[in-house]
This record gives sequence, structure tokens and C-alpha cells, in this order.
Amino acid sequence: MKTNSYFPLKFENDNLIFINQTQLPLVENYISTDDYNRIAEAIKRLEIRGAPLIGIAAAFACALAFKKRNIKDEEYFNKVYNRLAATRPTAVNLFYALKQIEEAYLQLSSSDDIYQKLLEVSFKIFSDEEKYSDRIAKNGLNIFRKKSNILTHCNTGALAAAGFGTAFAIIKKAFENNLVNHVYVDETRPLFQGLRLTAFELEKNGIPFTVQTDSSAAVLMKENKVDLVITGADRIALNGDSANKIGTYNLAVLCNYHNIPFYIAAPSSTIDRSIATGEEIAIEYRSSREILFVGKHQIGKETYQCFCPAFDVTPSHLITGIITEEGVFPFPYNFIR
Amino acid sequence: MKTNSYFPLKFENDNLIFINQTQLPLVENYISTDDYNRIAEAIKRLEIRGAPLIGIAAAFACALAFKKRNIKDEEYFNKVYNRLAATRPTAVNLFYALKQIEEAYLQLSSSDDIYQKLLEVSFKIFSDEEKYSDRIAKNGLNIFRKKSNILTHCNTGALAAAGFGTAFAIIKKAFENNLVNHVYVDETRPLFQGLRLTAFELEKNGIPFTVQTDSSAAVLMKENKVDLVITGADRIALNGDSANKIGTYNLAVLCNYHNIPFYIAAPSSTIDRSIATGEEIAIEYRSSREILFVGKHQIGKETYQCFCPAFDVTPSHLITGIITEEGVFPFPYNFIR
Repeated sequence: MKTNSYFPLKFENDNLIFINQTQLPLVENYISTDDYNRIAEAIKRLEIRGAPLIGIAAAFACALAFKKRNIKDEEYFNKVYNRLAATRPTAVNLFYALKQIEEAYLQLSSSDDIYQKLLEVSFKIFSDEEKYSDRIAKNGLNIFRKKSNILTHCNTGALAAAGFGTAFAIIKKAFENNLVNHVYVDETRPLFQGLRLTAFELEKNGIPFTVQTDSSAAVLMKENKVDLVITGADRIALNGDSANKIGTYNLAVLCNYHNIPFYIAAPSSTIDRSIATGEEIAIEYRSSREILFVGKHQIGKETYQCFCPAFDVTPSHLITGIITEEGVFPFPYNFIR
Repeated sequence: MKTNSYFPLKFENDNLIFINQTQLPLVENYISTDDYNRIAEAIKRLEIRGAPLIGIAAAFACALAFKKRNIKDEEYFNKVYNRLAATRPTAVNLFYALKQIEEAYLQLSSSDDIYQKLLEVSFKIFSDEEKYSDRIAKNGLNIFRKKSNILTHCNTGALAAAGFGTAFAIIKKAFENNLVNHVYVDETRPLFQGLRLTAFELEKNGIPFTVQTDSSAAVLMKENKVDLVITGADRIALNGDSANKIGTYNLAVLCNYHNIPFYIAAPSSTIDRSIATGEEIAIEYRSSREILFVGKHQIGKETYQCFCPAFDVTPSHLITGIITEEGVFPFPYNFIR
């Protein structure tokens, strides 16, 4: 349960209610819908984002697709499934959630209440993720040796996952245990998830913070202002190579140079057991417009060619430890057990 | 002489005409003024920017201060001098130019045409800088072993200095000598000098380029897309430690990790012979608004605290070579001769 005055999404009165993250932090606008296409659009447009949260939203979207058409229909299910699967290619949680929905769907008979059954699965995914968030936070306390200055990238809080998220949940839990002195937040270009969302969540939770441009993190490290770095992950290979928001690999290299521990926090559902290394992770490339425009404000000419990967892959040897609900795993990683 | 259809500033009909760089690349707006206060404002607001260009503009501003008040007046001169010296604290070229103006001023007698004499000094500073730019470009050719992909940061072209600038002049000269395959441009947060100004100059000069967010440079390096990095400098200590646009130190660390040569290009006037190491370089901190707003578009809340240094200092051991009009100097640097 959230104890503060915002929530990323909830299911109420047969509708999914979610906050439009693209308008944060200046406008807190909640959208209520029972249209699975609207939810797919929201994921595509990043109104709902964050790997675990995308999975939860996609599950509820599948359920809602059967609210008014509550019959077993293979073709229709596949259409809904494919529509949601096509929204974001990198986040493994999306496919993990969709797979759970699919497995449940396949076991249903035509006499079952499809809508209610898929809702049950969605709520289960949601509450499982909340549990994972709690356990990640608790496990994360083990990486603290003293009251620390933490640097983080992108958004990994309640706006990215159930509970209080992943890396953010650790920061919050550590702060409550008097283990956090200050949080430095990368603004996270091009979409400013740090400046817009993590700053919003830190302020809501009363945690002291400063925002810097992504390229200023290096200076903070050089000036010994950063004790450790924690980020989330969107997909982790079996060897520990981790895909996360563009800029994460840069941070990992900086940590390596400055001898600063670099941790990844993610639910174990983020580990893609079908791939051996990060080389197999498909990276989503976004439109040049994300660099050329900030909101409606144009910075560069539309003819300028931009390199705009949504994610990068950090090789496992640069990662001090990966924190999941199951524990803190140090390098070298071996997730097959 | 510029061969393309834009110029950063020129002196004509007793006025300084400069392009308002804050409006580029979308609007090419030239401003004509003979008011030294307006030029000081332009430097402060970054309408005129780039270490060498600031020096040239400040020299012409001092001269113009005596256009309508063409008499020797110590107190007035000091007022003008201090007004201009206070605009930007880090760029050594500003003080270097002002010093040349001051030395000339002190040698003048009350019967001299102060305005004309100071103009002569200003034109001399301008043409000296043009010569330096040409020589830097020629010296820079020596660092190329093959047709290369170059990554650069901020703006170092005609919009930053006389001639075709510093690092940009090398890129342009190398391109004309068929030594440049592609240029990758850091957008350069917070003020986007890469996306706005370097992209503008590369397009005007017909050089193929791609813009990326600053934190994506690491990925380009990992993917072997970058053969060398060249940036400018705003102040260089005697041991080679170099202050340049925030993000440069980050790039130097990335180059170190990826075994990519990292060069600095600057006129020797950028070397501050009064300081031994980079620790003595005063860093200018800019307003949080530069991070929180892009143009008039607000991203974060005005209450968010931001860390916003205009520059960072790259230690000399991370710099492969410093290219000045006098040659290519490799580490370890010793500029006292």
C-alpha cells in the first residue's frame, strides 16, 4: 500500500486508473479507462512506463479486453496479446506478465468468467510485484556500509513498479533506516525521467536530493560526493549483463574508474533465462524527435539525424551486485540454479 | 575569411554585429550594436559564447565604449573593464583580451584617438585568433592515422572562435582532406550547444553528422563507432589539466576505458600560465533554471535543487594531446618554455 499521496496505477470500479507520467511533475493527472487499446497507447507513449509497471498494466489491459466481450475467443485473445506485446520491445517484464495471462487464458473453459479470471491473475501479478519490491528494499539494505550519498539514473520508484519500485525502494528503505545522506539524480535525457519522475517521488517521500545533467555525474564522483550508484534494469541476461535506460552503461564505466560500487536492483522476473549474454538483448531505438524536441519546444532542426537508443547494456563485470527479491548477487553471476 | 553563409561576429560601420547564438539553429538573427553594455549582456546571456570569441567581443566592446566618449578617463575605463571582466569567470581568453586592451590603453596619451587605437588592438586580437585557428587546424591533421569517426562535445567552431574555431576547425580541415568519415555530436546539456550550434555548423559545412544525448557517447564507443574525440578548452593549467564545457571530463574517462585517443584543441592563449594545476581553476556555477527549463518550456519544479557547473576539469593524464597553434603537445605537458 502506498503511504504517500500519489499512485502509479490502480484497478477500481472495473477501470484501470493511471497517472499520466508524461505530464509529471508539473501536472498530476489521473486517467481512468477500461479500453485495452488506450492502455496499449499509454504504454507506447510512456504515459505508463517502468519495466514492472508495464507488465502490470498490460495484464489488466488483457483482462479489460474481456470486460464487455466475456467469451473465449482465441483469435481475439491473440489480437489483444499482440497489440500489447508490440508496445515496447525491451522490457522483459511485459512478456513475463503477458505469458502468465496467456497461460491462465489457455486453461479456462468456455463456461469460465474470463474477465474475472484474468483480473485475478492481474491482481496476483500486481501483489507479487509489491512483495518483490518490499524484499528488494530489504535486501538492498545489505549494501550499505555507512550513511551514504547515492546517485541514481532514470526512475525506479512507485512510478516504475509496484510497491516503491526497485532501486528507489532501496533508497527509501535506507533513508528510513538513516542510511541515506543525499540522493543525486541524473536528469536522464532524452525524456528526463530523473528530473521529472524521480525528483517528484523523492520530494513526495521527503528525501533530500539534487538533480544534475547526466554528464555531470562524473564530476560528482571525482569530487567524492557519491558513495554508491543504484539503478534498475529492464532486462538481465543469465551472465548478468543488464539492459537499462540509456546512460546506465556510461555510469557503470564512471563507477569503474572512480572505484564506486555500482548496483542493479530488479525483480528476478527481469532476468531473461532464455539469453546467455547481453549481446542477445534487442535494443529499442526511439524517434529523433525525443532528442530534437522537449515537449513541444523545438531545439534542433527536424532534418538532424539523431542516435536515440532507449537502453544500453552494461556488461556484468562492471556491476558490483544485482539485488533481487531473492538476495544480493555479486559478480560473477549465475542465475541458473 | 568565412566561406560559408554565417558569421559569429564582425565589426562594420562602427558597430559590432553578432549572431544571437541562443536562437540558433532555428532562427539566424544578427544584432548590431555600439553599446558596450549590450555586448556585456550578450556575453552574460550566452548570445555570444565560446572562449576565444568572448575575448574578441569584449575587446570590441571596450573600444566601442570610447566611440562617443573619446577621451582618456581612468575611472571610466576601469568601469568598462570590470563590467566586461565580470561577465564570465572561467574563460581565460576574456582576461587575455582585456589585458591586451588595458596595456594599449595605458600607453595612450590624452591626445590619442582612444577609440581608433582600441579598435586597432581589437582587430589585431581578431586576426591573431584567425591565424591561430588556421594553424590549429593544420596541426590537428597530424593526429589522424586514417579516415576517422570523430566525436565532439559542445561547440568549438566559427561560433566559438575566430576562423573556423578550434576542435571544429580540425574536423573541417580533416574533412576537406578526406580524413573524416562521420562526426558524432554530444547534444551538450544543459544548453545544447552541440545540438544547436555544432550541428548548425556541420550542416552549413556539408559534413555528415549524428547527434546523441551526452550519455549515449559511451554506447557509440562500446560499439567501436568512435575513433577519436576532440573538444575545445576554456582554460588550461601549466600541467595540462583542462577546463572545458561540463561533460568533457566524462568523455575523457570514457575514452580512457575504451582506449580511444582524447584530444583538446585550443589557442595557446587558453593556457593560463599563472596556475600550476586544474585545482586552481575557478568553476562557474550556472542557475538551476538552465536544467529546469528548456527555452520557456518547464521540465522540473522550480523548487528542485540542481547541480549546474558550466565546466569541468579534465586531469592532464587523461588527455592524449593538446593541439595549439604551436603544435601537438603530448602528455606529460610542460608549457613553461
